[in-house]
Amino acid sequence: MIRLSSSFVRTLREDPADAEVASHRLLVRAGYIRRSAAGVYTWLPLGLKVLRKVEQIVREEQDAIGGQEVLFSALQPREPYEITGRWEDYGPNLFRLQDRKRDDYLLAPTHEEVFTLTVKDLFSSYKDLPTMLYQIQSKYRDEARPRAGLLRTREFIMKDAYSFDATDEGLDVSYEKQRGAYQRTFDRLGLPTVICRADAGAMGGSRSEEFLHPTPIGEDTFVVSDGGYAANVEAVTTLAPPALDDAMIAALPAMHVEDTPGASTIAALTDLSNRAFPGKGTITETGEWTRYEMLKHLVYLLTYPDGSTEPLVIALPGDREVDAKRLEAALAPAIATPFTEADFEKHTVLKKGYIGPEGLGLESESGIRYLVDPRVVPGSSWVAGAGEKDKHVYDLVFGRDFTADGTIEAAEVRDGDPAPDGSGPLHLTRGMEMGHIFQLGRKYAEALDLKVLDENGKAVVVTMGSYGIGVTRAVAAVAELLHDEKGLLWPRLLSPADVHIVATGKGREVFEEAERIAAELEARGLEVLYDDRPKVSPGVKFKDSELLGVPTSVVVGRSLAAGVVELRDRRTGDIREISPQEVVEAVVAEVRGA
Amino acid sequence: MIRLSSSFVRTLREDPADAEVASHRLLVRAGYIRRSAAGVYTWLPLGLKVLRKVEQIVREEQDAIGGQEVLFSALQPREPYEITGRWEDYGPNLFRLQDRKRDDYLLAPTHEEVFTLTVKDLFSSYKDLPTMLYQIQSKYRDEARPRAGLLRTREFIMKDAYSFDATDEGLDVSYEKQRGAYQRTFDRLGLPTVICRADAGAMGGSRSEEFLHPTPIGEDTFVVSDGGYAANVEAVTTLAPPALDDAMIAALPAMHVEDTPGASTIAALTDLSNRAFPGKGTITETGEWTRYEMLKHLVYLLTYPDGSTEPLVIALPGDREVDAKRLEAALAPAIATPFTEADFEKHTVLKKGYIGPEGLGLESESGIRYLVDPRVVPGSSWVAGAGEKDKHVYDLVFGRDFTADGTIEAAEVRDGDPAPDGSGPLHLTRGMEMGHIFQLGRKYAEALDLKVLDENGKAVVVTMGSYGIGVTRAVAAVAELLHDEKGLLWPRLLSPADVHIVATGKGREVFEEAERIAAELEARGLEVLYDDRPKVSPGVKFKDSELLGVPTSVVVGRSLAAGVVELRDRRTGDIREISPQEVVEAVVAEVRGA
Repeated sequence: MIRLSSSFVRTLREDPADAEVASHRLLVRAGYIRRSAAGVYTWLPLGLKVLRKVEQIVREEQDAIGGQEVLFSALQPREPYEITGRWEDYGPNLFRLQDRKRDDYLLAPTHEEVFTLTVKDLFSSYKDLPTMLYQIQSKYRDEARPRAGLLRTREFIMKDAYSFDATDEGLDVSYEKQRGAYQRTFDRLGLPTVICRADAGAMGGSRSEEFLHPTPIGEDTFVVSDGGYAANVEAVTTLAPPALDDAMIAALPAMHVEDTPGASTIAALTDLSNRAFPGKGTITETGEWTRYEMLKHLVYLLTYPDGSTEPLVIALPGDREVDAKRLEAALAPAIATPFTEADFEKHTVLKKGYIGPEGLGLESESGIRYLVDPRVVPGSSWVAGAGEKDKHVYDLVFGRDFTADGTIEAAEVRDGDPAPDGSGPLHLTRGMEMGHIFQLGRKYAEALDLKVLDENGKAVVVTMGSYGIGVTRAVAAVAELLHDEKGLLWPRLLSPADVHIVATGKGREVFEEAERIAAELEARGLEVLYDDRPKVSPGVKFKDSELLGVPTSVVVGRSLAAGVVELRDRRTGDIREISPQEVVEAVVAEVRGA
Repeated sequence: MIRLSSSFVRTLREDPADAEVASHRLLVRAGYIRRSAAGVYTWLPLGLKVLRKVEQIVREEQDAIGGQEVLFSALQPREPYEITGRWEDYGPNLFRLQDRKRDDYLLAPTHEEVFTLTVKDLFSSYKDLPTMLYQIQSKYRDEARPRAGLLRTREFIMKDAYSFDATDEGLDVSYEKQRGAYQRTFDRLGLPTVICRADAGAMGGSRSEEFLHPTPIGEDTFVVSDGGYAANVEAVTTLAPPALDDAMIAALPAMHVEDTPGASTIAALTDLSNRAFPGKGTITETGEWTRYEMLKHLVYLLTYPDGSTEPLVIALPGDREVDAKRLEAALAPAIATPFTEADFEKHTVLKKGYIGPEGLGLESESGIRYLVDPRVVPGSSWVAGAGEKDKHVYDLVFGRDFTADGTIEAAEVRDGDPAPDGSGPLHLTRGMEMGHIFQLGRKYAEALDLKVLDENGKAVVVTMGSYGIGVTRAVAAVAELLHDEKGLLWPRLLSPADVHIVATGKGREVFEEAERIAAELEARGLEVLYDDRPKVSPGVKFKDSELLGVPTSVVVGRSLAAGVVELRDRRTGDIREISPQEVVEAVVAEVRGA
């Protein structure tokens, strides 16, 4: 029994100054957590109870698919992360430190490397596989901007699982098992999630999906179509228009250079085209020129983790902007920064405002990498800079007049864009990443030489999956989803207690009866939170009870003299008067769902 | 049910190369743990099960005395540790790091500072106290020489508890509660411990006791007397001989300087004294001089955490050596290094080989701090250097001819020395520190300004206690205590499984029957480890079963055809033949102690 009179719980009437979101505000005010440093939190007794319940649900679902729990240290040596490149790729997000001998260590953001090495240490045959290992443990990431309480922290508890298979088919099976376990986990946590195709990012690997919980405060943008397509915005692929065949391309008008004085922006170029060449546009039925046709060229300097740099030109339809997150995902681990004036001066082939494909590409004299939006398909016709001031090329046809080093998914995704699988227009939604599953493939096993002997005695590289759930974040997400203006609204499975007994008033009888009810409920196996504070007003106790958010409460107060106590439902606000003799059964029935 | 065929468990026939002690050797060989870096271990599935059981026992005993569980981050900011001085005092033992903004952080060795700040954040009145908080969590210490597997690591799981009281009497009560909880915890873990008075060391504070588990591989030396005195060797106080009163001192012979050519060592001085002044000794009945009477002077340079230095002279009876650990404990946080030739050249008052009290002391012209062994009591008579070559002073009486700046407990403790409480001669024993309880007093609360209002509305500084149990170390200590040449011998409460089912042979019937027995035992609520590996020889399975150390095993093998299975007791080696129909009841009875 938790007695509020002696518990390490203090509620606050005021919102903490730094709280931006409801979960942060309420978890702090209700005394579940306290901030210890930027992005580092302390779990107070009630908060820890909720956290342990979330952990236990996650654990049970991992055990149910044959996951075996282990525990690795957060402190790990540099070497394996050096071998896979993550020591560098993680950049400033990694907490790095040295020991007394000046050897390098890190606080692990995830543990792919050391799980791989441990499996290598223990296993040697295909018969040992598949195996699925997991841990529930503190992770560290030096976020640039920790924010929103538990939603973006620098230390957080994560369930990270890793699968090891000898074959691609085996990996598919392991991946599907985790996918199912995640669906069941979030169902039990009461967190609706959308499974989105995701960009594998710095983890490498092939297939990857995120479990996004739709919420307006989510940091991720994702898209869904009515037909069921769902993807993180970084992972959306563009539905390209059909390409033309060679015969059709041959029938298109030849390219020609035109004077376009002062038309150094897409807007100016579109205006000028409509004034100077009215009705010649290639997209609209009326021949009106659109921004779409004006091929926009953007120039970046790429910086790789080893410090080397390279220029990059991206071309996309003129009506689209670049989406910074998609660009970042497409180029990772390189980081792209827009060209500066100084950069332009060093590359005179790039005439700002009049850049076109001429002279670009790895095979060209300039050697500048040139990537185009997927909508730039063979036979598509564009207007682009002619590489000199006040001149543009018209009827410039991809595949005939120019080529590129490849395509890039960097253009913004817009509400209404077609889903790549043809399942209808996309709707943009905000979400919070609750889980992420990856088919890593052989990247880590190859780097760290994890092989097993197959049926023919031949050494084969193991294929891996990696599966994460943010456990502390899940606590916050539930608090964010389930609260009202008065406080938290825990679901029964996660509530720090099954029932909250509130004794009000000063009478000895009230406290004795409340104590008896609390003891009986505890004897029935319920977790009881008992507000036994003397000299605290009923108003304060009710407010605290609402703030703490236990689903069911029993108020023993003035009406006890009339032979009744109150059974309250936190979510609906319903109050039932009931005799003290019947209240224990009634609470047990509520809690057990009878 | 844990099936060995698919478990992440691999046993090793060979001892790991770096294993010095049995627990390390066996826990690695049996696949309970693996080394990840120097002093950093990974818990594999079976090891984690044992660890969780130890944690749960520790948790239950903390809950039983009203402890409230919380969870702090290992990553903590420098500032509070700077305020209490521990940022510096911990020296190279602290893992320090910087975040991306170059702010300083540490991986906490213990959490006094941040618990103090959190209580300050939540509590304000004496009515809020007492409170007892604890956590079970990973700690970090950058040990110079990690060794002995889990016994001395750089990351380890610890239960650390902190008590907060408004009064000294309250602290005594909290301390006694923890003392009792520790006794019950170690009883349940099956670890005999001796409660030893301890030196409070860098933690500060007044009363402190260690729970030492007597074992020849222990790193601590402690003493016990037949009358029940027990203390860590650092904490032993010396039983001083009675002091003489002024009248008795006046009756002693006057001091006199004698030529002692070449007698620059205690041995030489004793020889010379017996040759030159036979029968004049003051201790023995025959007047023979003993080494005891030759007051030995040792010179050190003290270095304080802030880098400042100071010379120190220590005087002790000539038959005693200095104990490095007692010296360190007596002077902490200063570090003492013996004077070098260069140091002696800078302090010409110190004539090596002929140092005496003359010219020493903070009040003297030299200003050199001078401390004496507690046996140097008023009226005790000594021979000491005269401060010039080849000369010593005889009949030098403390309190008449010389004084000191204080006493110091730096001399070695010897087997047979009298216990300070008169409870008989001391016996020296080796032990392993399993727990440590401290009355911290007001040191941390004062430094961090933790005050509450008392009954009169006056702000009073809170008094604290700090209580630690090494959880991972406890796992190793049990393994160290309970094993034989074949493997581990878990007590039932800590065993990773209640029963180990071994199916041997190739017959389908054997595996089916073993499976049935395993399933029935699991249905009865037992934790079952089932060796279902096909194509592994009975010999290997028996060896693994002994190595893994589950207390009870059932062997289903060839004799099944004759209607019997074997019920084996790992500890005694007893084998009982029993019918497969009766074995489930028999195992349940064994496990439940019926």
